Amino acid sequence: MSGQAELIAGLRGIAENGAVWDRAELGTRDPGFDDRNFGAAALVRPADAAGVAALVRFCAANGLSLVAQGGRTGLAGGAATAPDQIICDLGAMNRIEEIDPFARVAVVQAGTTLAALQEAARAHGLDPGIDLAARGSCTIGGMISTNAGGIMAFRNGTMRHRLLGLEAVLADGRVLNDLTRVLKTSAGYDLKHLFVGAEGTLGIVTRAAIRLDPAGGASATALVGIADAAGAQRIVRHFLGRTGTLLRAAEIMWRHFAVAMSRMLGFEPGALPLDAPCLLVLELGADTPEGAAEALEEGLAEIWQEAGILDGLVAGSLQQAGAIWRLREETEQIERMHSHPPSFDVSVPGGALDAYVARIGAGLKAIDAGYEPYVFGHLADGNLHISINADGPLAPERYAAVEDVLYAGLREMGGSFSAEHGVGLDKRSAYERYADPVKQELARALKALLDPRNLLNPGKIVTPAG
Amino acid sequence: MSGQAELIAGLRGIAENGAVWDRAELGTRDPGFDDRNFGAAALVRPADAAGVAALVRFCAANGLSLVAQGGRTGLAGGAATAPDQIICDLGAMNRIEEIDPFARVAVVQAGTTLAALQEAARAHGLDPGIDLAARGSCTIGGMISTNAGGIMAFRNGTMRHRLLGLEAVLADGRVLNDLTRVLKTSAGYDLKHLFVGAEGTLGIVTRAAIRLDPAGGASATALVGIADAAGAQRIVRHFLGRTGTLLRAAEIMWRHFAVAMSRMLGFEPGALPLDAPCLLVLELGADTPEGAAEALEEGLAEIWQEAGILDGLVAGSLQQAGAIWRLREETEQIERMHSHPPSFDVSVPGGALDAYVARIGAGLKAIDAGYEPYVFGHLADGNLHISINADGPLAPERYAAVEDVLYAGLREMGGSFSAEHGVGLDKRSAYERYADPVKQELARALKALLDPRNLLNPGKIVTPAG
Repeated sequence: MSGQAELIAGLRGIAENGAVWDRAELGTRDPGFDDRNFGAAALVRPADAAGVAALVRFCAANGLSLVAQGGRTGLAGGAATAPDQIICDLGAMNRIEEIDPFARVAVVQAGTTLAALQEAARAHGLDPGIDLAARGSCTIGGMISTNAGGIMAFRNGTMRHRLLGLEAVLADGRVLNDLTRVLKTSAGYDLKHLFVGAEGTLGIVTRAAIRLDPAGGASATALVGIADAAGAQRIVRHFLGRTGTLLRAAEIMWRHFAVAMSRMLGFEPGALPLDAPCLLVLELGADTPEGAAEALEEGLAEIWQEAGILDGLVAGSLQQAGAIWRLREETEQIERMHSHPPSFDVSVPGGALDAYVARIGAGLKAIDAGYEPYVFGHLADGNLHISINADGPLAPERYAAVEDVLYAGLREMGGSFSAEHGVGLDKRSAYERYADPVKQELARALKALLDPRNLLNPGKIVTPAG
Repeated sequence: MSGQAELIAGLRGIAENGAVWDRAELGTRDPGFDDRNFGAAALVRPADAAGVAALVRFCAANGLSLVAQGGRTGLAGGAATAPDQIICDLGAMNRIEEIDPFARVAVVQAGTTLAALQEAARAHGLDPGIDLAARGSCTIGGMISTNAGGIMAFRNGTMRHRLLGLEAVLADGRVLNDLTRVLKTSAGYDLKHLFVGAEGTLGIVTRAAIRLDPAGGASATALVGIADAAGAQRIVRHFLGRTGTLLRAAEIMWRHFAVAMSRMLGFEPGALPLDAPCLLVLELGADTPEGAAEALEEGLAEIWQEAGILDGLVAGSLQQAGAIWRLREETEQIERMHSHPPSFDVSVPGGALDAYVARIGAGLKAIDAGYEPYVFGHLADGNLHISINADGPLAPERYAAVEDVLYAGLREMGGSFSAEHGVGLDKRSAYERYADPVKQELARALKALLDPRNLLNPGKIVTPAG
């Protein structure tokens, strides 16, 4: 394409029913969680899979590369764009095509937000079984492309485990129709899993069939002070083993995080019992709120000694439960204390949590005596979020040193340097340093096979072999 | 290799610590569920992944192809061998390397049987969350390679959903180490999923990390007579939505199957209430057997009218519960009535079950007025097993006609022509006729990428592109 005007005219020609924004218009729009999202030459919003396929073919014919975007809530630069790229915005493909209440399946277009699916499912007493803070913006296609996790993954699995079937447009414009609506299929290579967590580099997800579960009843919330993660895991194990109630969340915060959050949220000192090395947030489901609260009290009493519980509070009101959850979830408060604090997202095998947190604390202090990380996350699946108490971005050498403290040895112990945020641009160097070399070779070969011209979200995750 | 003696000597040279059986010895051994399993030139039983890699390299150097075998319980000919092939038997790699009771993870070698893992987990009050009738023989590696499902999949997912990490030997002898022990990983293409359901055609699984769940408490069993699958689904939905109890199984039998089974098992006529078009077996978990039985009675009473229940029996003794389960599970009785009855394994989207069963009944009758299929299976995930009341094998044209009745249109409605048995040899022609053409092209390209010389279980699932 010789110029912007010609490009836009070409894009409008293939996107009859979809919007096309040029660079000037992109500059006036909200790019979402990442300023780099709207650095492209143009954005096209197709109306359906055929429109996506036409756009892919147009880009292939003109040697243009394409970045698929959903809710633009990614945290690893997976949707960042360069000035010569085209954005394929799935936002107009937001139809909930069907909900089958007895088979407990939803079929949705990729641009459907999680909140919209949750609401539609709730009308049938059902729930997609996955939940994230970004629920109002994040889309099913984006959640598939990063294998989103969230708070309920320890029970219900990640997005991969909620996915029954998928339709995707390949780099040459072919449409892969693998839209099964059943849980069990052993009918040849299950190719839909190639696209889960691939961040739009192997194909563009256009539709999906998602499992639904019966929506829960009442629940109660507790905040438990405890010496370490091992004790917290004993509590989780205890509640998982009790029939009659359903453990819905088990979130952990180390003290430094909880105390800083409480201060930033303006909580009265002493309003919540935070005087313990670790704080565990439990949410337990039962038939009635009273039954849930009683079961929490009872279960905590049963495990008190064995788990070494220091303090425990079962929320006596919705307000108190809300305050406990704000402490854990309103993590944007960290960004009020520090400008762009370096933030990380790791999975640590359960038995190693305490040793890991101690080790990174010491390692970070060795880099800078003032570093004391905020550590919190999803206890029951070992997914920790870690923010450094410093302004970012760090100088590259220092950032690499911090990554080394957090990531070195994680793979060997069975963990992951990216739990639920993906690789995108921001974890490319970590991927190259810490992912298994054979896995990296295979991944490059796969990328070369599925996208030989490197047109789909190039530069993210891998460079094709060749 | 010029001769059998030279071949065996060569194999013994690379398998210092593992057994090697020649063709003569294979002829004296039990080939498992399929006579074709032991049709090979030799069997080697490596001691570890390095031994598997050495065997793969030996075979590659000598142009020999290799068929991985676990418990030899497959039902689609996935482990069938030809006279010039070598068997890689994982049976000696049966070590349970670790169970982490708090992170709820087991790390096992691929040749570990499901029963051995269940027993080891139970010592910690845990369970692998998947169960099959072949539990005593089937291996974790084989279950991964066919994406095994079973009775609890509707709640806990299939083998893919129980898998946290995996080690596999590739066709060139490289070892892919993707042995994460955490649920959440979004750290580049999640390549372990390539090997799930690939039946050993893309690599040989050597180790795996498996999720464990707390083992259940007490339970009770009911047999419910009902007009159709839609009514049965209402019952399932009702029990899934109740807190306080845990639905553990929801199995369905159509009358023709249940009545024939009852007769073959020598049950007193009228001992179990079988006078209904459909019979639903429910197993409900609770704190005590009495509590489970009461909750079953209560729940069935609540939904009786709405679901159109015709008759219901909550087992009053372990003997009665056992009889109900024998009715559903002792399917080898069908093989006493017919010699090699043609048997099938499909997934049907929930809302379509009754229409599907009616349609295939009519379609089979149109082929042969005497055909009346035995239909039973896993209601809650739509997985039906279907056996024809006739001796097999059928003539090829007739078999194709039967397959067409069962499989045509299934993909378009979101089902699958193979739910949990795989493709192997026996469903190759169905795969070619009924799988999405783009999926087939991609699968052939993947096979060519990972196994360009077609050395790993050639002829199963796909032929490499070339």
